Amino acid sequence: MVKTDIIIIGAGPVGLFTVFEAGLLKLRCHIVDALPQPGGQLAEIYPKKPIYDIPGYPTVGAKELVDNLMEQIEPFKPGFTLGERAEKLDKQEDGSFTITTSEGTQINAPVVAIAAGLGSFEPRKPPIENIEAFEHKGVEYMVKEPEHFRDKRVVISGGGDSALDWAIHLSDMVKELTLVHRRKGFRGAPDSVEKVEQLAAAGKINLVTEAQVIGLEGNGKLKEVVIHHKTEGDYTKETDFFVPLFGLTPKMGPLQDWGLDIDPKDGIKVDTFDYSTNIPGVFAIGDINTYPGKLKLILCGFHEATLMCQSAFKIVHPEQKVSFKYTTVNGVNGF
Amino acid sequence: MVKTDIIIIGAGPVGLFTVFEAGLLKLRCHIVDALPQPGGQLAEIYPKKPIYDIPGYPTVGAKELVDNLMEQIEPFKPGFTLGERAEKLDKQEDGSFTITTSEGTQINAPVVAIAAGLGSFEPRKPPIENIEAFEHKGVEYMVKEPEHFRDKRVVISGGGDSALDWAIHLSDMVKELTLVHRRKGFRGAPDSVEKVEQLAAAGKINLVTEAQVIGLEGNGKLKEVVIHHKTEGDYTKETDFFVPLFGLTPKMGPLQDWGLDIDPKDGIKVDTFDYSTNIPGVFAIGDINTYPGKLKLILCGFHEATLMCQSAFKIVHPEQKVSFKYTTVNGVNGF
Ligand SMILES: Cc1cc2nc3c(=O)[nH]c(=O)nc-3n(C[C@H](O)[C@H](O)[C@H](O)COP(=O)(O)OP(=O)(O)OC[C@H]3O[C@@H](n4cnc5c(N)ncnc54)[C@H](O)[C@@H]3O)c2cc1C
Ligand SMILES: Cc1cc2nc3c(=O)[nH]c(=O)nc-3n(C[C@H](O)[C@H](O)[C@H](O)COP(=O)(O)OP(=O)(O)OC[C@H]3O[C@@H](n4cnc5c(N)ncnc54)[C@H](O)[C@@H]3O)c2cc1C
Repeated sequence: MVKTDIIIIGAGPVGLFTVFEAGLLKLRCHIVDALPQPGGQLAEIYPKKPIYDIPGYPTVGAKELVDNLMEQIEPFKPGFTLGERAEKLDKQEDGSFTITTSEGTQINAPVVAIAAGLGSFEPRKPPIENIEAFEHKGVEYMVKEPEHFRDKRVVISGGGDSALDWAIHLSDMVKELTLVHRRKGFRGAPDSVEKVEQLAAAGKINLVTEAQVIGLEGNGKLKEVVIHHKTEGDYTKETDFFVPLFGLTPKMGPLQDWGLDIDPKDGIKVDTFDYSTNIPGVFAIGDINTYPGKLKLILCGFHEATLMCQSAFKIVHPEQKVSFKYTTVNGVNGF
Repeated sequence: MVKTDIIIIGAGPVGLFTVFEAGLLKLRCHIVDALPQPGGQLAEIYPKKPIYDIPGYPTVGAKELVDNLMEQIEPFKPGFTLGERAEKLDKQEDGSFTITTSEGTQINAPVVAIAAGLGSFEPRKPPIENIEAFEHKGVEYMVKEPEHFRDKRVVISGGGDSALDWAIHLSDMVKELTLVHRRKGFRGAPDSVEKVEQLAAAGKINLVTEAQVIGLEGNGKLKEVVIHHKTEGDYTKETDFFVPLFGLTPKMGPLQDWGLDIDPKDGIKVDTFDYSTNIPGVFAIGDINTYPGKLKLILCGFHEATLMCQSAFKIVHPEQKVSFKYTTVNGVNGF
């Protein structure tokens, strides 16, 4: 069981910045995110787009902002549990909370900061009847660790950037890479499309367009996929992995059952004094929360995270007084 | 009379960023500051220090942050009245407000945003009995426009960076520059001290240490200063200008008489819904305000400015709906 001062649910910009403000107060953090990488919406939805309303940045790329936040929090060495969804929140006898993830990881702390944005990013699953039986038994909806696929046979399906980028990346290390896409043309960045076509011409990617994976076969473990091709009809193909990359959609999901006071349209209701929820010790910051005047903007979440940490400190160290010092005067002293 | 949508009192980081958020909503701003340059505390107190808690900046110089904010708001072409203190706030019959400055400049708008920080930066005046009679008649506490002094005789007094830097800068363009300082050593940056000594050796600066200006003479206009020297006693020196540069201290000053609900220790009380004060149409943001949970940090002021602009929009355009669009999607369209 991981023990820390603040469990942060969500590695979006707001969850990340919380580590910094907590760190200034010498509080340790552990972040859980369903995505395999930090950055939340910025990393998942618009990594290459410029943002213009981060104060002090006339313009900053979304991915660049995430990288800068990761650099800013580095001195405080947060823990990360990525690619796992926070499923359960249990209050312990000593007043602390235990979070259990979709993979069974448990983290314990006196404070929980929910920075869950639009919700947990969940993969869009293709409509293949028995797909759930093969999850983590050959079917993966995300590439968390490319090494996992080394020297294996992999079938990727999808037509966007994620499918193209992973096909390119993995083609170099797997035994056989097949990319299946429903249409002739791809939706991804033109240079990625070109690269995939080059790799297909060079025999490094087995490109199957105007086709869909419609079935999965195997006994407890994936053995082959059934491909339906527009003109060639159905055929099977042996594979170790099937990786459908049809994008991710955020879902409120498990949070809804944690006893939080939630406005179904706007999110978790909080007190603007410290962005606390109705459960003492549990805070909600960033896009996930709601209060009079709330704007779902990154810069607002930064403010919320900062005020929250003052109350978090009092919970972690009830006997101490928070000392307020400017970073300019005091610097940043990591762990 | 200048007419605008929002009068911003204070060109600190929070006042500056307000221009950006207002601009996204197509609201125009005019900023008033007692200081001759933008940046508030950052420019006046710690321009060369690094700040570590601006989200997304592992480190940023205070002056650099101000420069970046100036670049960020540039598309929205704010008006500036610098070097003048906002003295009076008058409500007009049409519901709008008129601000009158110390120099008599008048600005009118339906919304006033008080981003006055620790208060208006006021010069520390040397204890010379009749000094006020010569203000703007030969006595200047700030260098707003160096050209004002070209080919004149100038006596500067002070021992810090401001006195040193202006002595260096002006020595090149004035007829005669005298720098009077109470002690032998200076408090300023070593390279500035060295430069002043070089210019003194070269006859470009007339350096008088262990001395003080103790009297002013003239008839309606400054004619000479009386200098008291530790060993040489008192003597007079003809001059066109006397510029005492003993630093600036922030003073709440005139704001206190505007009918605002003020906590004498913490500042102007506001509603966190939109940081409105007890006077409808007048908002208070940044260090000057107070509310439960308030932290006097730059990043908090950015959030406050942003929420405030939503209500400002409704006052300026009561018939329209605010449309909320991400900058990433909509870009920044200046005026
Ligand atoms: C196209 C687009 C453009 C935008 N442009 C701007 C802009 O210009 N300026 C601006 O300020 N904002 C913009 N936004 C909004 C901005 O992205 C959000 O305000 C910001 O991402 C909120 O940050 P967050 O940290 O609160 O949440 P998010 O970024 O949503 O991150 C939340 C994270 O929590 C994770 N999570 C949720 N529930 C769980 C769970 N149970 N277990 C594990 N992990 C979980 C999610 O997987 C996600 O990674 C834009 C948004 C979009 C979609
Ligand atoms: C040494 C030091 C280090 C700091 N370090 C940090 C840090 O690391 N991080 C952080 O977040 N904060 C830090 N701060 C605090 C930070 O500087 C303030 O939070 C910030 O300046 C507040 O910005 P503001 O725009 O509200 O006000 P200010 O920067 O104070 O600007 C207010 C402006 O309003 C003007 N004004 C006031 N009244 C009037 C009037 N009647 N007429 C005309 N003009 C008027 C003033 O002249 C001034 O220029 C530090 C402060 C100091 C002194």
